[in-house]
Amino acid sequence: MRSLLIRHTRYGDKTTDILVVDGRFASLSASAGTEADETIDATGTAILPPFYNTHTHAAMSLLRGYADDMPLQRWLNEYIWPYENKMTAADIREGSRLAIREMIQTGTVFFSDMYFEIGETIAVAKEFGIRAAIGVTFVESHSKSQQEEKLDMLRHWGDPTNGLITLTVAPHAIYTVGSNLLVKCAEVARSLGMKLHIHLSETRKEVEDCLREHGTTPVRYLDSLGFLGPDVIAAHVVHVDEEEAAILASRGVTIAHCPCSNLKLASGIFPYRLLHDAGCRITLGTDGDSSNNNLDMREEMKFAALLAKASSGDPEVMPADEALAMATRNGAAAFGIDAGVIQEGKLADALLVRLDDVRMQPCHNLVSNWVYAAGSSCIDTVICNGKILMRRNG
Amino acid sequence: MRSLLIRHTRYGDKTTDILVVDGRFASLSASAGTEADETIDATGTAILPPFYNTHTHAAMSLLRGYADDMPLQRWLNEYIWPYENKMTAADIREGSRLAIREMIQTGTVFFSDMYFEIGETIAVAKEFGIRAAIGVTFVESHSKSQQEEKLDMLRHWGDPTNGLITLTVAPHAIYTVGSNLLVKCAEVARSLGMKLHIHLSETRKEVEDCLREHGTTPVRYLDSLGFLGPDVIAAHVVHVDEEEAAILASRGVTIAHCPCSNLKLASGIFPYRLLHDAGCRITLGTDGDSSNNNLDMREEMKFAALLAKASSGDPEVMPADEALAMATRNGAAAFGIDAGVIQEGKLADALLVRLDDVRMQPCHNLVSNWVYAAGSSCIDTVICNGKILMRRNG
Repeated sequence: MRSLLIRHTRYGDKTTDILVVDGRFASLSASAGTEADETIDATGTAILPPFYNTHTHAAMSLLRGYADDMPLQRWLNEYIWPYENKMTAADIREGSRLAIREMIQTGTVFFSDMYFEIGETIAVAKEFGIRAAIGVTFVESHSKSQQEEKLDMLRHWGDPTNGLITLTVAPHAIYTVGSNLLVKCAEVARSLGMKLHIHLSETRKEVEDCLREHGTTPVRYLDSLGFLGPDVIAAHVVHVDEEEAAILASRGVTIAHCPCSNLKLASGIFPYRLLHDAGCRITLGTDGDSSNNNLDMREEMKFAALLAKASSGDPEVMPADEALAMATRNGAAAFGIDAGVIQEGKLADALLVRLDDVRMQPCHNLVSNWVYAAGSSCIDTVICNGKILMRRNG
Repeated sequence: MRSLLIRHTRYGDKTTDILVVDGRFASLSASAGTEADETIDATGTAILPPFYNTHTHAAMSLLRGYADDMPLQRWLNEYIWPYENKMTAADIREGSRLAIREMIQTGTVFFSDMYFEIGETIAVAKEFGIRAAIGVTFVESHSKSQQEEKLDMLRHWGDPTNGLITLTVAPHAIYTVGSNLLVKCAEVARSLGMKLHIHLSETRKEVEDCLREHGTTPVRYLDSLGFLGPDVIAAHVVHVDEEEAAILASRGVTIAHCPCSNLKLASGIFPYRLLHDAGCRITLGTDGDSSNNNLDMREEMKFAALLAKASSGDPEVMPADEALAMATRNGAAAFGIDAGVIQEGKLADALLVRLDDVRMQPCHNLVSNWVYAAGSSCIDTVICNGKILMRRNG
């Protein structure tokens, strides 16, 4: 498929025809006689950017609802880890398939993952045609040979999908990876031009343990190792002070905010205003299905916006446009994907959203309706890299 | 239609046939040869109680997305009130229609309303066959003759819908209704056996103004007037202390918790644990589309549960079952509707929810999936009083 014509969709304030050629938006106002290899009638829809989920664990879809409403340590020790110890490569494949189906149905065209048996997740992502940055996870408890194997995999990575799938170097967290290995991960990532993906300052316990062990807080500790930089995607970042926010901003770190997971596990309240005002790049992630319990980025946007307003006591904080940016173009930019906005020349990632759905009416403000009122069921069509991944009313 | 047979739905741990006769569940394990006036095949679904939305303003659906992300006073003064001043009876009818369609599609079979031109909302509710408790709103600024007219309407109310629609006496709030009128409203409601519906302790400003004007807090003030009782539905109740929680519990007041609205307007964080531990009956409401911006009770359950966990710092607070109870049987009980649980003899209000939806898989725990993972698009069928209000795959 070389070209795709999307007819009669609403873009901004007008109804237009949109032409996609070779996976990029060629025209947002195609003339009447335009022809293409494939043409779809998008009457009754608006075109919007799709979602870029910057922190998840796809195959944990198998653990959706397996354990809820309990403290983190009991959740991990008695449920999650024993379950994971029994998961086979075939399970990871099945879990990845379920998760990627869920992501596509809810409008996501990219996910940044961190799990194990990643060959399975890569194979399924390739099969579905979704973008992904798959983390090669490092934990201290792996043997030297396991770690060498992972480093080898990184060094010999060849993208099997024409640029849709990348790897990231993913040291799990400061409490599961020692300083030498953290430094090594950073060196490897930088020598290979890959991103670093890590959990950071998720819980108060992580901060307290770090203070006890390293005499400083997690952000300062990672910075002292030279780990932080514009290639780092830090998930959660719930417990930070003003100086740490300034460090994260000055190093250009990308934050993957996961509001549902933080709330559900009672990890804490994300300091949105602090990090935003410090100038940090903030993106949105769902975390895994086991702590959310879905991968619905539309719902995640609403949680992020409403939480930011309530926690700051200011309803003007994180207006709808800002929530949408976090869930879309900020995430794409963090991973160097030339997409996330509907614009000529950009990679053709898009959603067609039904305007005749009851939740989208009336339409005083499209973005407000999308962030605050819609459901993912309003999504009619999901387009990634110029290809249709899902179409409900085709 | 006298009888309805729901075949092959999951109830608890088993797949069963459910018989409804004269609007009530006659059998939850109908035998194989059972016949009925109408039979539906519910294969692939589970039966769950539907939602009872205890605080909304239906016709404000017309203001969805009209004004967001701004302080309450500016929102009211510059947007909401000027818009409302121009709304006609025809607008109220159209807004009620949109809202009730949205409610049914998202699984709600009852709503407690507070607005104006209520004859229009009643007519639409009747047309759709949904249950409703429609507030006759009182504000001090109405003329004496307007107030007399409303009192007359209450005294001469005859339910046009065979018991599905009731009226409530709805003094708007302590800051819009004086003490004499509040007392009169309570007297009228009690003499007619009707419920009282009021906004209470929604914002810090309401508390501060009450302290200045009456020398005490809103809950204590209303209690001093003899207003509080088991017939009172108090919406919001965000700003209360421990003694006020005890007063509300001892008077048997029902609280309509509206998490999305409170968060979006930055009104404050609902003190769930305080009110729950005091023994209050807590129900769930969406508030109007203008401050939410939808009427989706499934989403509201997730907001309520996650907010309760995060604000208390305890992930065990408000487990999924408790969130479901708030959104279903607690609301029904507060309004004296003999429904909200799937049980023989109860009024036949129910949802059939698709188990094959990707968000409902795997199914380690049905209620957890429903509260935390699902979307309202998982709803296949909505049944109210034994009648099918919506069926997607019929």
